Amino acid sequence: MKLATFEVETPVGPVRRLGVPHDDELIDIHSAYAAALAADGEADPVSIADAHAPPDIIEFLRRGDRSREAAQEAVAYADEAAIERGPTGGRLRFDADEVSLLAPVPRPNSLRDFMVFEEHVRNALGEEPPDAWYEMPVYYKSTADSVVAPGETVEWPAYSSLMDYELELAAVIGKEGRDIPAEAADEYIAGYTIFNDFSARDIQGEEMQARLGPAKGKDFANAFGPYLVTADDFDPETAEMRATVNGEVWSEGTPGEMYHTFADIVAHVSQSETLYPGDVLGSGTVGEGCGLELGQFLESGDTVSLFVDGIGTLENTVR
Amino acid sequence: MKLATFEVETPVGPVRRLGVPHDDELIDIHSAYAAALAADGEADPVSIADAHAPPDIIEFLRRGDRSREAAQEAVAYADEAAIERGPTGGRLRFDADEVSLLAPVPRPNSLRDFMVFEEHVRNALGEEPPDAWYEMPVYYKSTADSVVAPGETVEWPAYSSLMDYELELAAVIGKEGRDIPAEAADEYIAGYTIFNDFSARDIQGEEMQARLGPAKGKDFANAFGPYLVTADDFDPETAEMRATVNGEVWSEGTPGEMYHTFADIVAHVSQSETLYPGDVLGSGTVGEGCGLELGQFLESGDTVSLFVDGIGTLENTVR
Repeated sequence: MKLATFEVETPVGPVRRLGVPHDDELIDIHSAYAAALAADGEADPVSIADAHAPPDIIEFLRRGDRSREAAQEAVAYADEAAIERGPTGGRLRFDADEVSLLAPVPRPNSLRDFMVFEEHVRNALGEEPPDAWYEMPVYYKSTADSVVAPGETVEWPAYSSLMDYELELAAVIGKEGRDIPAEAADEYIAGYTIFNDFSARDIQGEEMQARLGPAKGKDFANAFGPYLVTADDFDPETAEMRATVNGEVWSEGTPGEMYHTFADIVAHVSQSETLYPGDVLGSGTVGEGCGLELGQFLESGDTVSLFVDGIGTLENTVR
Repeated sequence: MKLATFEVETPVGPVRRLGVPHDDELIDIHSAYAAALAADGEADPVSIADAHAPPDIIEFLRRGDRSREAAQEAVAYADEAAIERGPTGGRLRFDADEVSLLAPVPRPNSLRDFMVFEEHVRNALGEEPPDAWYEMPVYYKSTADSVVAPGETVEWPAYSSLMDYELELAAVIGKEGRDIPAEAADEYIAGYTIFNDFSARDIQGEEMQARLGPAKGKDFANAFGPYLVTADDFDPETAEMRATVNGEVWSEGTPGEMYHTFADIVAHVSQSETLYPGDVLGSGTVGEGCGLELGQFLESGDTVSLFVDGIGTLENTVR
C-alpha cells in the first residue's frame, strides 16, 4: 500500500491528512474509515477512526497492523460506496491536483543517513573504502527540520556554489525497539520512500576535513516522497532506481547492491540505542547516484527527478 | 533565573512540570503563576497560566519575554504568599528530594555538538587542527532521543570497552530564526546548561575512519542539567568548569577559551537553515575536558560530576 501525507487548504488554514493514491485521486483514510464504520453501525465512528487511523503518519505507523487494516477497509469502502463524505462531513476523496503533497513523513523523529553502496564510496573517496566501512554500516545524522516536499523548490544555500543531488532509498521505522536482531528488523521497518539528499559539495568537502562528518553540506534540504510504500509491497533488493536531470538520465542502480542491508542497519543502530516510529534511515547514494561521481553538478533551474520502481517519482527544482 | 524540568509521581502516573529552584525547594511556575493571577482577581487564571507559562520547557521558551516575566511573578508570589496550592489544587512548591529532576530540555528538538576548543582538538587529533577548523565552527548532529537526566545511571553500551566523559557547555535556542547575524545571536539563545557527551572511544575511533563523523560512539547517552540558566544570568566567557571522577578533579577550564563563540555558532548554523526553540548546541569539549586527552578512561561504577559555576553540578554514574 502507498501512503501519502497531503495538505488541504481550508477556510481555517491548511490541514494535514493521510491518504492512499487510487486512480487519480487520494482517498482520505481517516474520513473513509469513519464512513465505513458508520455504514457498519458503529456508535461513534469518528472516535474509533481517530484511534485506529489517525491522519498523522507517525501516529498511524505506531499503531502497526491495526492502522494498516483500517486503511485497507477505508480504501475498499471508498472504492465501492457512492457516498462523498464521512459522518462529520470530511471528504472521502481528493483530486491529486487540488491538494499539496508533502513528504510522506513531513517531520521525521530523526534522520540518519548511511553509506552502504561500495561503488559510491570508492567513487566519492577516490580510493578503496577503509576497513571500518566493511565492518559496519557507517552513517551521519542529518536534520529532521529541513524536509522538502515532492515538487517543492530547493533553495540554493547562500554559502555554496557546487550543488549536487543524491539518489537514495529511505526506510521508515514504524515500531519502537532496541537491540533488534537483523532477523527481526522487518517487524520494525514500516516502509520505504525515495530520498534526495541534496548536497553542497564545496562546504561539505571543507568541513569534513575536520572529521566530524557533513553538516552545512547536507542539512539545508532533504527531499522525500512522493509516497511511503509499506514494506509488504516493496522489495528493496530488486527495485530499479534512476535519476534524471531535466529529463536526461544521469544515474541508474538498484538497492540490491547494498553491502549492508537495511536489516543490518537496523541491527547496528539499535545496539544500546532505541529506535522510534518516524525515525528515517537513508541508504546512502547508489553507485554513480550523484553528480560528484560523474563530474557534473546542478545549475540553478535544474529539475532533478528520482524514480524508484514501485514507489514513484520524486521531483524537485533547485534555484 | 534557573529553570528545572521535574517529574512528579501522581496516582495517575508521572507528570512533568517546570520549576525554579529556590532554597531547597522547586517552585512550580505554572501553579504559582496561576495562584498569583487568582490573587489579582484574574477571571480564568489557569487558562492564562497555560498560555503564558506552560509546564513544557520548549513551549515556555518559545513564548520569550512573556514566559520569563510570568516566571518572575510566580517566584515573587510563592516567596511571599503563605498559601500552598494554586486555584485548581496544584502545589506551589516541591521539596527537591520528593521529585525527579529531568534534563532541563528532556527531548531537544535537535542536538548539534561543536568542537570549538583548540586545545581539545590538538589533544584529541594528536596534530594541529586542519584549516577548516579555524574557518568555521564544525559540528556533528547527535541523537535527541538519548538524553540522560541528572543523577541517572548511564548504561555502558554492549559494543564498547572504552568509555569517556566530555565536559561541555550547551546553549539552548529559544526563538525561531534563519540567517541570524552573530550580533543578534543573543536574542535567540534562551540559556545554558551543562552537557556530558559520553563517548565510546573504541567504536568512535573506528567509525570515524569512514569520514561521516561519530555515531555509535556518541549517540547512546547525552546528559544535561541540572538546570537551564537563562542567558541574562550567565556569562559563558568567564564561568569556571570542572570535571571530577569519584571526587578527584580530572578537568578544568572555562568556555572563554572558545575559538568560535556561541554567537559565531548560531550565525554559522543558521545560514540557509532554520533554528527552532529547543535546538541544543553543544560547545564541544574544553581543553583537557575528557579522559582521551588525559590518557585515562572511566570504569564501571565511576561517578562523573561536571561543575559549571553559575549552573550547578551534573552527576552521572556509568555502569
